[in-house]
Amino acid sequence: MLSREENEFFTQVGPGTPGGELLRRYWHPVACAGELTEEKPILRVRLLAEDLVLYRTPKGQYGLVAEQCPHRFASLAYGRVDDEGIRCPYHGWKFDASGQCIETPAEPEESHFCDSVQTAAYTVRKLGGLLFAYLGPAPAPALPHWDVLAWERGVRSVERHSVIDCNWLQCMENSVDPSHLYWLHGVTAHLANLMDGYDETHDFIPFDHGIMKRRTTPFKEGPKSDQHPLLFPNVLRHVAHSRDKTQGHRHNLQYRVPVDDTHTQVFMAIFVPTPGEHSPADGDAPHSFVPMRGDDGDYRMEMVLAQDVMAWETQGKVMDRSRERLGSADKGLVLFRRLLKDQIDKVAKGETPLGVATGGNEGIIELEVINERIGLDVPETEGAA
Amino acid sequence: MLSREENEFFTQVGPGTPGGELLRRYWHPVACAGELTEEKPILRVRLLAEDLVLYRTPKGQYGLVAEQCPHRFASLAYGRVDDEGIRCPYHGWKFDASGQCIETPAEPEESHFCDSVQTAAYTVRKLGGLLFAYLGPAPAPALPHWDVLAWERGVRSVERHSVIDCNWLQCMENSVDPSHLYWLHGVTAHLANLMDGYDETHDFIPFDHGIMKRRTTPFKEGPKSDQHPLLFPNVLRHVAHSRDKTQGHRHNLQYRVPVDDTHTQVFMAIFVPTPGEHSPADGDAPHSFVPMRGDDGDYRMEMVLAQDVMAWETQGKVMDRSRERLGSADKGLVLFRRLLKDQIDKVAKGETPLGVATGGNEGIIELEVINERIGLDVPETEGAA
Amino acid sequence: MLSREENEFFTQVGPGTPGGELLRRYWHPVACAGELTEEKPILRVRLLAEDLVLYRTPKGQYGLVAEQCPHRFASLAYGRVDDEGIRCPYHGWKFDASGQCIETPAEPEESHFCDSVQTAAYTVRKLGGLLFAYLGPAPAPALPHWDVLAWERGVRSVERHSVIDCNWLQCMENSVDPSHLYWLHGVTAHLANLMDGYDETHDFIPFDHGIMKRRTTPFKEGPKSDQHPLLFPNVLRHVAHSRDKTQGHRHNLQYRVPVDDTHTQVFMAIFVPTPGEHSPADGDAPHSFVPMRGDDGDYRMEMVLAQDVMAWETQGKVMDRSRERLGSADKGLVLFRRLLKDQIDKVAKGETPLGVATGGNEGIIELEVINERIGLDVPETEGAA
Repeated sequence: MLSREENEFFTQVGPGTPGGELLRRYWHPVACAGELTEEKPILRVRLLAEDLVLYRTPKGQYGLVAEQCPHRFASLAYGRVDDEGIRCPYHGWKFDASGQCIETPAEPEESHFCDSVQTAAYTVRKLGGLLFAYLGPAPAPALPHWDVLAWERGVRSVERHSVIDCNWLQCMENSVDPSHLYWLHGVTAHLANLMDGYDETHDFIPFDHGIMKRRTTPFKEGPKSDQHPLLFPNVLRHVAHSRDKTQGHRHNLQYRVPVDDTHTQVFMAIFVPTPGEHSPADGDAPHSFVPMRGDDGDYRMEMVLAQDVMAWETQGKVMDRSRERLGSADKGLVLFRRLLKDQIDKVAKGETPLGVATGGNEGIIELEVINERIGLDVPETEGAA
Repeated sequence: MLSREENEFFTQVGPGTPGGELLRRYWHPVACAGELTEEKPILRVRLLAEDLVLYRTPKGQYGLVAEQCPHRFASLAYGRVDDEGIRCPYHGWKFDASGQCIETPAEPEESHFCDSVQTAAYTVRKLGGLLFAYLGPAPAPALPHWDVLAWERGVRSVERHSVIDCNWLQCMENSVDPSHLYWLHGVTAHLANLMDGYDETHDFIPFDHGIMKRRTTPFKEGPKSDQHPLLFPNVLRHVAHSRDKTQGHRHNLQYRVPVDDTHTQVFMAIFVPTPGEHSPADGDAPHSFVPMRGDDGDYRMEMVLAQDVMAWETQGKVMDRSRERLGSADKGLVLFRRLLKDQIDKVAKGETPLGVATGGNEGIIELEVINERIGLDVPETEGAA
Repeated sequence: MLSREENEFFTQVGPGTPGGELLRRYWHPVACAGELTEEKPILRVRLLAEDLVLYRTPKGQYGLVAEQCPHRFASLAYGRVDDEGIRCPYHGWKFDASGQCIETPAEPEESHFCDSVQTAAYTVRKLGGLLFAYLGPAPAPALPHWDVLAWERGVRSVERHSVIDCNWLQCMENSVDPSHLYWLHGVTAHLANLMDGYDETHDFIPFDHGIMKRRTTPFKEGPKSDQHPLLFPNVLRHVAHSRDKTQGHRHNLQYRVPVDDTHTQVFMAIFVPTPGEHSPADGDAPHSFVPMRGDDGDYRMEMVLAQDVMAWETQGKVMDRSRERLGSADKGLVLFRRLLKDQIDKVAKGETPLGVATGGNEGIIELEVINERIGLDVPETEGAA
């Protein structure tokens, strides 16, 4: 149970808030790379309560700047992009990727007025078919090359899901809460009839990148374990059967990106190790949009992901944790909140929070994910693929 | 004219408000019985500013509990119902109809943690094809067996109308305001051309269950009277021609149920006495949904009920009664407000308000409704049917 | 750059605000005349933050009164109109065009209750196919007979555009901001490829009715000038090619009517001088509705008018001028704000603001509009048509 002040402390994401400052120390995906094309080079993005536009130049460079032009606030989402940057549609002011204004056409050439004009701008990087942005103080840390993003011997795809109408923390608390698997997803995941009853054990092991979760489930045919991590602060790394079971395992990363205090955007990267296939880590990947509600406006409750979204959203825009009733099975969640508090405090003291690599090394990070139920008894590695 | 404070006093419906406490001493319909089936046993309900779920067990029992699970606030509207109660979809916590938690599956069996967990739960009763809830302090009073609900020799049906975007009091003031019949409904009700001009007399007689209204209208062919009651606090009892005039009279009850301060849900029960027909008082009745707006989004102004809704909603979400201009023809409304104030005060003093029967007697209550214009010169009774 | 207080001073339009009081000294169009017919004689109107209904009697007179009946606030938009006035649908109270209540049918005839009841009512006039309202103190000033409204030798039409989701001042600042033509409209207006680069000069000349703007553009084939006025406070007078270039010039007036602080309604009157054609100044004109967004919900960016709306709306509901970055090219805008401030101050002191003619003379006002690029080298006049 949290006081209202503690709840705000954990859930606010805007500039200057304690939680917002922590989140600004990490890279966040802002689009599927394939969403930006020569024909449609601009995309409106809202991230950490900031309104931005993401653009792609004809030469394939990316920029991310404040949506509103500092002159008279018209939207750069309707602007024009060239290799130097993006131009406001209203009076033609032009900005480069650093946010420096480089042209104010109606001003006298000799005035150098534009030199005094800057707009907010952030660094963008492409990896694993996603475009990542860093909104924190310079220098930007290393962009983590998670296996799902960096493996190449197989097939990768990326997804943008419906925007979720609640705070990001509800999604992440769900990721250190293994008991919901049986109840929320049990029927869809074909678990219920494989067991005599619900009786699991759960472990939570803090590690360099977050919290490794381990679950042992008493199936009728014998106990089976699975383990996979919450990558701090807002990513779930998971593995499942491929939809077509003749293929390899379906490894995935679920980014729960805070749009603002009451909205969250999920991006998902999926990698299926497949002999003979090659997906370059720095290429675009096939991308799709996955809606969480059906034509009737209700959740697509036959789908595991939409079951989660139902649980998250119905908790309220920002769940009122001053009235919750935690049990002993909520120990993962308590651990995660403690970790989150410690990292927020670290940032407030000017220290580097968990998982932020300040050096330049961006080697592939392979995670010790196993899932005995689907036959993955030892962690998969690129070398073994 | 009311001060702003008086207006709030009369119109607020939430827990702990003076008006809300009065309204919690009465039974209110929350659904048509036929809306809950084995295939769709759960319905989300908002009543008196409380978010609830109504459910039906396989054996046909009903329960009404808080929508959000006390654990982590996921919605029981997506839960699972069995004969013991309703189970939360997120972690499987289960509640019985009294609101007691009877299972928390992920907790150690020996902990008896669930014994300490309760959720809000309310009593539900079925009568006349409607499901009624009582949200007040125990013991629940008798559920009034109005004739339209309890008569059996004839044909009964029930209706749910569109949710109305205004406070319930606007609907009820309309029910002690007989002069609007001629103006708002005159054309539709074929009154205008039956008279030489508008010249009615109105009487309002307080009685055991509310206010009996009597109107005498000078038709060209001679004066005719009708009388029917406002059943305190939020029901209108009425009679009209059957749509097919070869049938009996169409007796109806209109419940204007406060959803919250700015929304009202109308349920209607209709009974047409018909020789040879039988409609059990404790059975489901055919039910339908009646929209008040057409495909163009505007009121269905050819329909008497939608004419009323237009008048109610355009008064504002909560009509600002500090600026109204009442005339002498508004005496019914003044009487009703005085009655309402007296009953709110009674409840505040711990007394029993008008029409609340605390004993166990739930005999049929036949009302002295007449309408000479449609040939109903003496009140109809089941015995005479 | 304006302080927050200055920004409110300029942008608020409601009764009693400094800006609202200035705007109430001018006539504003509230409908196309042809929108009111015998079959549909009532139209809901929101103007200067007041909710009103505009009506047309069977004899063709117009009235404009508060939407809510002073009795119990039902909407007169569902009322009935006759030659004496408009009657409330709820209880039949009837109001004449001066706002005097002339009937309260349910009150005793001898009470003369209705004599004590008034509602807000405003004067309406028809000119050039539009209906104009005056919401200020009596006496109403002359209704300006701009050439586009009063010319008769040619073809006139009128348009209602989509309601714009922002404050009116953003639209008008755009009208003293000539540099946006090249950038916002350059492609659509076929300007970009007629020049070697952007290099214009602009002049702003205050005159009796507002600000005359003059622009000289260095086309490849030689410099060309155009001039047209901002008619104070909220009208743009303009001229362009006719859509079918075999016809005369397309003269137009764009009224940006403040609905409330955050919405603006554009009405447009268009006149094409055409030999042999006659359009009476006091007649209805063909009218149409022009949506600014397409079926995809986005701006119709191929259309000059929608390009403007994009620029205005994306500045925000009420642009935060405390953070703007004005350059020397924004001198027209600075001049307009100074003029606006002076006129607001005048009204506060009880003086007559710019362009308000208090005498009865309503002669035609021809404006010195030229546009060399379309071949209009000297101002057009009715005599010359």
